[in-house]
Amino acid sequence: MKKRAIGVFDSGLGGLTILDALHRTLPHEDLIYFGDSANVPYGSKSKQTVTRFSLDIARFLENEGVKMIVVACNTASALALSELRKQCHVPVLGVIEPGAKKAVESTRNGRIAILGTEATIRSKAYVKAIFKKCPQAHVIQQACPLFVPLVEENWAKKPATRLIASSYLAPVLRYNADTVILGCTHYPVLKPVLASLLGSQVKLVDSAQTLSQAAMLFLHNRQEQETTGRGKLTIYASDDPARFKRLAGYLLKEKIGTVRLKKLNA
Amino acid sequence: MKKRAIGVFDSGLGGLTILDALHRTLPHEDLIYFGDSANVPYGSKSKQTVTRFSLDIARFLENEGVKMIVVACNTASALALSELRKQCHVPVLGVIEPGAKKAVESTRNGRIAILGTEATIRSKAYVKAIFKKCPQAHVIQQACPLFVPLVEENWAKKPATRLIASSYLAPVLRYNADTVILGCTHYPVLKPVLASLLGSQVKLVDSAQTLSQAAMLFLHNRQEQETTGRGKLTIYASDDPARFKRLAGYLLKEKIGTVRLKKLNA
Repeated sequence: MKKRAIGVFDSGLGGLTILDALHRTLPHEDLIYFGDSANVPYGSKSKQTVTRFSLDIARFLENEGVKMIVVACNTASALALSELRKQCHVPVLGVIEPGAKKAVESTRNGRIAILGTEATIRSKAYVKAIFKKCPQAHVIQQACPLFVPLVEENWAKKPATRLIASSYLAPVLRYNADTVILGCTHYPVLKPVLASLLGSQVKLVDSAQTLSQAAMLFLHNRQEQETTGRGKLTIYASDDPARFKRLAGYLLKEKIGTVRLKKLNA
Repeated sequence: MKKRAIGVFDSGLGGLTILDALHRTLPHEDLIYFGDSANVPYGSKSKQTVTRFSLDIARFLENEGVKMIVVACNTASALALSELRKQCHVPVLGVIEPGAKKAVESTRNGRIAILGTEATIRSKAYVKAIFKKCPQAHVIQQACPLFVPLVEENWAKKPATRLIASSYLAPVLRYNADTVILGCTHYPVLKPVLASLLGSQVKLVDSAQTLSQAAMLFLHNRQEQETTGRGKLTIYASDDPARFKRLAGYLLKEKIGTVRLKKLNA
């Protein structure tokens, strides 16, 4: 039987942190990544528009013959997951549920903070997922709309980023949360500055690892897991693949190969 | 004869500063504004993609029966103007040429700095327009990719914005430019912080007023200028009109009416 890849997508670069984790957890799987650089960012856009973008990408990935789609974007997971599951013929995994699970397992004082894009926060997707697992949890949400452009511009280590982060984190610190969900796949790049502002007693949760384990278990249960051979990475971007590749270098330690241009709806 | 409107478009909100100037200069003209909030920002995207977005909008405006199109976006003017002029049946005015003209008229030491998005700077459109008018000018360019998100998030007055601006302006200050082009329609919102960092001897140039005068002269010469009645403003956004209207409040002193949703290519 022909080997079928796992499809992974994000509005842009952030999902590469998920791709990286999937590649480590499932080293035999072929992975096809789609970064929607023509429509980035999703975080300030409406549910309807983000759903339309996501469905276009899912159709492309299904045409590529993937056996599963991983939505490596918090905004798309928060706004479009149910519609994707309705319309896709393969299973679709999102990042919200694994992130919420990990946060609930991690907290000791029951106080969890969620950082995310404007759209993710407005959707309350993490809040609902947390309450489903732990109805007595205390939750605070904070939209951090400037974090994505700061990461995309490689400003993670600059003093202005620290100043902006300290402004976003002030309510989180007052809330005394012991667990903070990095509810956007760009945010793990900011871990050093966030950790230094929040202090070492606060646990930072990103969903990359939990999601990869969920994907592994899922494939294992369906007996669709590849167990031999080295997995191939194929990367598409909907605009300016050269810029995409250059910026990917800031986000990932590993070198990525060719980034192919694939326009949807052009 | 039926009154025909002027079409105005931008990637998002920034072009409202141009709309405002057009409305003051041409108070009898109906104006139709299109903000492409589904695809914002343009400044980090490729020529091909920005041209595709711009042509879709121009087609919509032509279908609305406009007599002229004003590209109230520096990135679209820099990357798509010649293609728009090729494909449109009505005249198309951009912001680059009027901005360059005003800068050349304003400078005394012949040293001009251009601030813009990554795409505008890469296109060298301002540099070419300045050299055409004044071959002996000295020109420095500086991309300021974080300015658009800072303005869209209403952070213009925060200390982090000053810190980021001072980093972008350091080379401009060393260059001893006496004239600085605000080469993006969002940047006029940052005038207070830019002026305070550059000092009062440096002239800040934005193209809103020069462009409006060029539009007036153009219509006058073609005898297409309206001379009676109060001009109507009609505003469309390609995504989330409620958010668009709320953010417009940060950018414009004047209240805007209903923002209508108009999806292109949906």
